[in-house]
Amino acid sequence: MPNCPEFALHCPLPVVDHEVVQMAHGGGGRLMQQLLERIFFRAFDDPALGERHDGARLEVGGVRLAFTTDSYVVRPLFFPGGDIGSLAVNGTVNDLAMCGARPRWLSAGFIIEEGLPIETLERVAASMRVAAAAAGVALVTGDTKVVDKGKGDGLFINTAGIGVIEHERVITPRSVRPGDAVLVSGEPTGNIAIMSVREGLEFEGAITSDCAPLHGLVQALLGGGVAVHCLRDLTRGGLAAALNEIAGRAGELHHGKAVLAEETVLGVRFSGWTRCMCANEGRLVAFVAAEDAARALALVRGRPEGAGAALIGGVGGEAPGLVTLESVIGVKRVLDLLSGEQLPRIC
Amino acid sequence: MPNCPEFALHCPLPVVDHEVVQMAHGGGGRLMQQLLERIFFRAFDDPALGERHDGARLEVGGVRLAFTTDSYVVRPLFFPGGDIGSLAVNGTVNDLAMCGARPRWLSAGFIIEEGLPIETLERVAASMRVAAAAAGVALVTGDTKVVDKGKGDGLFINTAGIGVIEHERVITPRSVRPGDAVLVSGEPTGNIAIMSVREGLEFEGAITSDCAPLHGLVQALLGGGVAVHCLRDLTRGGLAAALNEIAGRAGELHHGKAVLAEETVLGVRFSGWTRCMCANEGRLVAFVAAEDAARALALVRGRPEGAGAALIGGVGGEAPGLVTLESVIGVKRVLDLLSGEQLPRIC
Repeated sequence: MPNCPEFALHCPLPVVDHEVVQMAHGGGGRLMQQLLERIFFRAFDDPALGERHDGARLEVGGVRLAFTTDSYVVRPLFFPGGDIGSLAVNGTVNDLAMCGARPRWLSAGFIIEEGLPIETLERVAASMRVAAAAAGVALVTGDTKVVDKGKGDGLFINTAGIGVIEHERVITPRSVRPGDAVLVSGEPTGNIAIMSVREGLEFEGAITSDCAPLHGLVQALLGGGVAVHCLRDLTRGGLAAALNEIAGRAGELHHGKAVLAEETVLGVRFSGWTRCMCANEGRLVAFVAAEDAARALALVRGRPEGAGAALIGGVGGEAPGLVTLESVIGVKRVLDLLSGEQLPRIC
Repeated sequence: MPNCPEFALHCPLPVVDHEVVQMAHGGGGRLMQQLLERIFFRAFDDPALGERHDGARLEVGGVRLAFTTDSYVVRPLFFPGGDIGSLAVNGTVNDLAMCGARPRWLSAGFIIEEGLPIETLERVAASMRVAAAAAGVALVTGDTKVVDKGKGDGLFINTAGIGVIEHERVITPRSVRPGDAVLVSGEPTGNIAIMSVREGLEFEGAITSDCAPLHGLVQALLGGGVAVHCLRDLTRGGLAAALNEIAGRAGELHHGKAVLAEETVLGVRFSGWTRCMCANEGRLVAFVAAEDAARALALVRGRPEGAGAALIGGVGGEAPGLVTLESVIGVKRVLDLLSGEQLPRIC
């Protein structure tokens, strides 16, 4: 963890050995991007991977599919508003939705540490069943492995998912155009809820994780005829990472003020991140054609999981690849990726 | 580990707490089956999962797909003839092939322990690239997570895969018929190779893992018009587990003598397993119509990875669900699942 949390963005990184993997390599910030570029994008030079999207778009026999995977290593396994099981289902459902696909089938791989109570597995499996039913997906194949005590951390879950793309739009960072409106579906609270359990923190308001499926919002936008250009859920690295990753392939994003509930703001300020770094698994950012912005907002707000939605900015053309943040008093600054670790093990 | 290795099958289990997960729950034997039945098959009551096959068969828009997943937790990460990366590619390629599908796309999820040398990741990614190219699959989507030092074991990899089923056959345990011939593609050596590195064992012969893709054998059988009823790769639990799982859904299997290289036999006897429990990731068992048996054998032997193939028995009808083993002097005994753990962390 950076040692001056109130100004984490401006801290020098601690002295670290860059030849071994560090926690920050998993945090969704710059180090993770560097690791991906250095190792994985270089080794697997596939066009689908090159899209840097939440999933791959595939085509076979005239059928368009989305395919995605995520491993879940969250601690603790159970937290206010969710658990590793619901997170593993919703996370992959959401990545498929971000490709504009209707989520259909999931796989689940369980890596279990010797000594885990079987009752814990039962609770997690039950939670996954409920989450899958709510999202309308079927868990069709799976795998279990057991590792020696001390060689795991209770339970890790990997889910992969297949969705079907039932429209003609190409929803990807490359489709973003100058002038596009930027919409977020609500304020993120997820990792604050998890941290509050892990670190014994208490807040005056009740904070629960916003772990929830997002495919309903996406279907509402697409069904409503909105010209959706790009979608991203606000997981590791939060809005800052999402906007920077998309901007890096799209153009400048100029965005204003996000709507955040007071108790969440307090939580975020307490731990020294800007609100834009806050990650969760129940919020998305959408890039839509400017002329559809008002209709998109109404469609998203019309659903319970999008009640707190807001238009937060637009895509400019002056400084391609940069994300600028305008404060309430009009000061602009560059919104960068977090350099080191955010809050590890939140997803 | 059982404390009398020469007679592991007949040992009473050590006294264990059945309310927590044990290493044996991951070994591919009876305890793993019980865990799957108790937790996962109960929670996820899906017809595709109910097939108890190596993957799920799906259909969308007239296209037939296979979908599968496996996590790889092998120790050590590098072993004679392979490494965790080639294993993760070939294992999932093989599971797709066992569904009769042509493997097409893979996902990869990396769970990295803090402190892993980045050079190790580079070697593993390079190995995956080579294995994927050899198997004709594209790695199209991925994920990385980092866990704290002491909460993982260097590197775990999950791969999921999608294959396309390009024929009309239904290759599944339910398709097995009395009279079917049983063919194995060669002798298994995989876990002996891994153990020889891990435990510092030495053998007179050179033992390497038979980690290899099997889809070429499957395409040869299908392309040659063989009536293939069921396929299974000989991973956790080996031939004994494969035959028992299939027999539990098919009828009696009566099989004779497998072909095993002398040096492997020595390795197996040394550690007290029967040769039928030996797992690997480069051998398959095929159930084919009796009239196609000789042709199937010729087709499989015609490929380098099937040069050691043999017909080892047939499907009878006298004692449904039981697998019987006939020794060279004609003594029959029931070939059961291993009760406890085989060799953990070999895949």
